[in-house]
Amino acid sequence: METKENISLWLMSLQDTICRSLEEADGKSVFKEDRWKREEGGGGRSRIITEGAVIEKGGVNYSAVHGPVPAFLLREAGHSPNNSLSDKDTFYATGVSIVIHPQNPMVPIIHMNVRYFEMSNGVKWLGGGIDLTPHYVQDEDAAFFHTSLKAVCDKHHPDYYPKFKKWADDYFFIPHRKETRGIGGIFFDRLASSPEMSFEKNLDFWKDVGNTFAPTYVQLLAKNKDLDFSENEKQWQLLRRGRYVEFNLVYDKGTRFGLETNGRIESILMSLPKTASWLYDYSPLPGSAEARTLAKLVKEKDWLSCSS
Amino acid sequence: METKENISLWLMSLQDTICRSLEEADGKSVFKEDRWKREEGGGGRSRIITEGAVIEKGGVNYSAVHGPVPAFLLREAGHSPNNSLSDKDTFYATGVSIVIHPQNPMVPIIHMNVRYFEMSNGVKWLGGGIDLTPHYVQDEDAAFFHTSLKAVCDKHHPDYYPKFKKWADDYFFIPHRKETRGIGGIFFDRLASSPEMSFEKNLDFWKDVGNTFAPTYVQLLAKNKDLDFSENEKQWQLLRRGRYVEFNLVYDKGTRFGLETNGRIESILMSLPKTASWLYDYSPLPGSAEARTLAKLVKEKDWLSCSS
Repeated sequence: METKENISLWLMSLQDTICRSLEEADGKSVFKEDRWKREEGGGGRSRIITEGAVIEKGGVNYSAVHGPVPAFLLREAGHSPNNSLSDKDTFYATGVSIVIHPQNPMVPIIHMNVRYFEMSNGVKWLGGGIDLTPHYVQDEDAAFFHTSLKAVCDKHHPDYYPKFKKWADDYFFIPHRKETRGIGGIFFDRLASSPEMSFEKNLDFWKDVGNTFAPTYVQLLAKNKDLDFSENEKQWQLLRRGRYVEFNLVYDKGTRFGLETNGRIESILMSLPKTASWLYDYSPLPGSAEARTLAKLVKEKDWLSCSS
Repeated sequence: METKENISLWLMSLQDTICRSLEEADGKSVFKEDRWKREEGGGGRSRIITEGAVIEKGGVNYSAVHGPVPAFLLREAGHSPNNSLSDKDTFYATGVSIVIHPQNPMVPIIHMNVRYFEMSNGVKWLGGGIDLTPHYVQDEDAAFFHTSLKAVCDKHHPDYYPKFKKWADDYFFIPHRKETRGIGGIFFDRLASSPEMSFEKNLDFWKDVGNTFAPTYVQLLAKNKDLDFSENEKQWQLLRRGRYVEFNLVYDKGTRFGLETNGRIESILMSLPKTASWLYDYSPLPGSAEARTLAKLVKEKDWLSCSS
């Protein structure tokens, strides 16, 4: 049985590995680390990279926080018939969160989060997600990305990719724009154990999700980082980043939870891009590459084949 | 007794007057109008100005919408002992909303909203607010702005300025940054009638608030629009706009209400600037003009005298 301390140690080594891979891929900038403490218990190490050759702004953050169980979880548990939780219970939450905004509009934005949560009443669960936000959707890259995620899922359970792909479609969605944030990926929460999958087996799956981030994104970086782009394409990148800001500030559960619980603001808002733009009622020209990308930002697309 | 139709007519003429004043002050760009209809009843006319000589992006929006009373108001009324509201009741809401983002960082961002709300059970109220967000706080301008608002308030009731100034301090506040959005102004909601002030008297006050917008802001534009600025000051403007985006997407009640009730997105999000920026953990140099501005973004400041 993995202890929470071991899970945190594993997450720290994941943070190390990912930072090393991204620094190598960038070739110019390195991560700057800020360690911080949480008044109520625990803390983290935030690592930010800026003004790289390939990455304009990105963060790879680790945290492990603990303390009395948050009020909203007590309320939620209070509605359950088998409530074993009291206000004397404590929680422990640890995770790694990543957002990378590249320089080149031909390189996609990426996000990953893997998190572990346990309470002193014995309840524990795993959560995670990876999603890709290309400024310009390239079917070949989308197929590569989803195929990589499917391989990780299929190794552990045949239902995981379809289930968690759909969950990502629903989660990474901007209702007021009626657009997905990007081409999705996988998302799952409160994964514990089932008759088929013990907690330990799910933990292996979860670790594999974390491990797949660096090789997958580094390949997308290498493939696209030297592509030419125009001023017009840079402008479009800023508009797409505007949508990213809208999603993160209005809907992203991690961001809103952090803002509401007095988390470390600069670590939470590292997900925001260096620059973003909003134009009134802008629509790309019919038939343009931008219009083709917009048309693909819908749920329930099968990204596995290039012809999607 | 003013009818809702007359109040809407007054708001439309206010929109006309304000747009004319701003176009004149800008001298280059004019407003573009989009009329829109709301499926459930009513609609509006959004007017947007972009790429002006003085105004980079701004909106002066009028709307009048009606239909069944929204669920959240029915719930709220359900908690009241004298609830006279049922799901057969209807509402009518009309208002003008303004946000102006200037080109020059020495010119402040401004926001105004005046709104009227009534329901078929006879309940009706007025709301409004004006607040100023200078990228660089100039005490002289702050004193002029607050003195203008105080004059409007004092004309109607001696308590209104201190009460509504405090309300603005509390409303236009970014808790996660522990900063006010700017130098505040006045804010009030659900203003109906009191022993001293009939609804008609409050309506006169409310109209005066609307009327004070154009002359006050035009004076601030004229005074500051030709001031020199550096690249560094332009960068700071983008960072302050980032904070404006944070406030509007995370906290602004009008924005969140609009997003949640399927309002016209482009009209709601006209408040977002053309460009904004986020830098990780950025602090201005001690003693700089930027640091002096930050130090002034606190509640309960007396802005009426220049030496504040």
